[in-house]
Amino acid sequence: MHIAVLAGDGIGPEVTSQAVKALRALAANGPQFTFTEAPIGDAGYDQTGDPLPEATAELAERADAVLFGAAGTYESDLRPPEARGGHALLRLRKRMDLFANFRPVFAFPELIGASTLRREVIEGVDLVVLRELTGDIYFGQPRGIVTEGGERVGFNTMRYTESEIRRVAHAGFKAAQQRRRKLCSVDKANVLETSALWREVVIEVARDYPNVELTHQYVDAACMLLIRRPRDFDVIVTGNIFGDILSDAAAMLTGSIGMLPSASLNATGQGLFEPVHGSAPDIAGKDLANPLASILSAAMMLRHSLGQPEAATRLERAVRRVLAEGLRTPDIMEPGATQVGTEAMGDAVARELA
Amino acid sequence: MHIAVLAGDGIGPEVTSQAVKALRALAANGPQFTFTEAPIGDAGYDQTGDPLPEATAELAERADAVLFGAAGTYESDLRPPEARGGHALLRLRKRMDLFANFRPVFAFPELIGASTLRREVIEGVDLVVLRELTGDIYFGQPRGIVTEGGERVGFNTMRYTESEIRRVAHAGFKAAQQRRRKLCSVDKANVLETSALWREVVIEVARDYPNVELTHQYVDAACMLLIRRPRDFDVIVTGNIFGDILSDAAAMLTGSIGMLPSASLNATGQGLFEPVHGSAPDIAGKDLANPLASILSAAMMLRHSLGQPEAATRLERAVRRVLAEGLRTPDIMEPGATQVGTEAMGDAVARELA
Ligand SMILES: CC(C)[C@H](C(=O)O)[C@@H](O)C(=O)O
Ligand SMILES: CC(C)[C@H](C(=O)O)[C@@H](O)C(=O)O
Repeated sequence: MHIAVLAGDGIGPEVTSQAVKALRALAANGPQFTFTEAPIGDAGYDQTGDPLPEATAELAERADAVLFGAAGTYESDLRPPEARGGHALLRLRKRMDLFANFRPVFAFPELIGASTLRREVIEGVDLVVLRELTGDIYFGQPRGIVTEGGERVGFNTMRYTESEIRRVAHAGFKAAQQRRRKLCSVDKANVLETSALWREVVIEVARDYPNVELTHQYVDAACMLLIRRPRDFDVIVTGNIFGDILSDAAAMLTGSIGMLPSASLNATGQGLFEPVHGSAPDIAGKDLANPLASILSAAMMLRHSLGQPEAATRLERAVRRVLAEGLRTPDIMEPGATQVGTEAMGDAVARELA
Repeated sequence: MHIAVLAGDGIGPEVTSQAVKALRALAANGPQFTFTEAPIGDAGYDQTGDPLPEATAELAERADAVLFGAAGTYESDLRPPEARGGHALLRLRKRMDLFANFRPVFAFPELIGASTLRREVIEGVDLVVLRELTGDIYFGQPRGIVTEGGERVGFNTMRYTESEIRRVAHAGFKAAQQRRRKLCSVDKANVLETSALWREVVIEVARDYPNVELTHQYVDAACMLLIRRPRDFDVIVTGNIFGDILSDAAAMLTGSIGMLPSASLNATGQGLFEPVHGSAPDIAGKDLANPLASILSAAMMLRHSLGQPEAATRLERAVRRVLAEGLRTPDIMEPGATQVGTEAMGDAVARELA
């Protein structure tokens, strides 16, 4: 199985190399992998003048799966779009048609103390945000800044076609069928036509899934409910921009965003797997970053793109065991635990797998 | 002073009448008011066929201030836009040019237990979300649902002009000057041109306020930070749709959304004052609703539109005293407190003012 390793910027390289280490440890008595690295993000821009070098994009398309670190920094965000590291990711999502972004959020029993929410509210949270990733205001045309009546006007277009909504709705219902059979569709149908169509199509698709309970929430109410009663959610399906906000809010609830993986899949089952946390340039290169989100992203890769559910479970169990042993990176450190760095945490997981 | 009372739907009428009761109690030894009631929302639609009857809009424009309850219900949200109660509010905001929506969020020491956040995280939270209320994707043209290539496509336009951004930015800096002098501008400038212009104009306006510390956050990160470190925020300024989501998230943090008021002001200082909680039709007419958000909205009205800061402070103190006495409506009830209904809570505040 051929894995494209796009480690990218900030803490991307150091966490991704721990995930590769874990996959190599698995390979000792399990599936075999070949890894090919390629630059992306600021790293891609620095080496080739393009944050998504053509060779990197082609490698990603050819590979069985993409293990992704992080792209972009606050610094490169100030450059024009075509020179921003972060834009490489947007382009790769679009190019590979990775429309279904799954972000599971679960409260690790060992890490409840890291949440800013009260224990009884956060305990047992186990939800998935399914964010549509290739449409919406992220990609809608027209867009730009023009001059009108002597002043500048900025504009963007939110936009969804029926078929774009339909395919992500199907993905949401299917995910719910594998879980607790509850799907909450989030929109702003009381204000936006795009959302009115979204809601209509989701209701239509629901007919194919009579055993899934469908509810609808406006995005503002959904954000409140996530804070108020996060356990009520099973699968949330929503558009690209609302999903960007809601998935980050949901991730932060547990207090251990350094633990959360994500998968972005296309219709062929190919996928890009990345930690939710981003590039965190302030702590890069200091052996401080938590590699577990990247390692758990590798587990999602094994399950969703590589057809290796058992290897995925082995990897997830190894993570649970190092937590149970009391090992903690600084972001999840608590009294009585043993603080370790990025590398040592990766070593501990690899050791568990041996 | 002439106050237009637009009580609207759901729990709107019962909470608004407690605010009117409190204002009448104040008037016994303070400012004098005349109140004129008019229908709006589903109530407006049922009486006149228009959720914002022309006579209601004209009354609101003529009055010194508007005391607003709530408009719309989930039921009427299913009708075409022109028949939806909720749309009356959108139209009134636009017609009166109420571009500056202030939503203060504070943790009442007496009510910390109602928050889902841990005490040490939520204690002392005191922030204001300033949401632009008359632009953005709420009102941008073109919008609609069309057929393209044999399928329907929904679309909306996010849009801000320089002058729209500038005036709300000024309002944000001025509010920060009255407070802890920190302004956080929230956008999605790494993806949206509208946000790139937003950020540029806010930075420009900042030159006039050298004593205010300006920071920028992307909307997804801002939502996380609100959950992670809500005390870090002083004033947040953002566009209409991001503000819709963030202000609800911020309001929910304290756990006492039934306590939170809001003010929507135009350039002349005229304003509409409403509780944040909405129409809550499920508990309407049952004497269960918390009237304190409406009463505190009346206090904001006294301070921001009617030039009566002392009366505002008297009203706010009266609310604090009934809380200190242990009176609680069901939404904020806790062991050891005395549960009361909407009417009794309103009576208690009026009694404190006597
Ligand atoms: C970096 C940025 C463009 C990106 C997004 O908004 O999609 C990020 O926030 C994410 O959620 O992956
Ligand atoms: C009812 C709805 C149209 C409204 C909005 O989105 O502005 C509400 O959510 C609010 O925040 O006042």
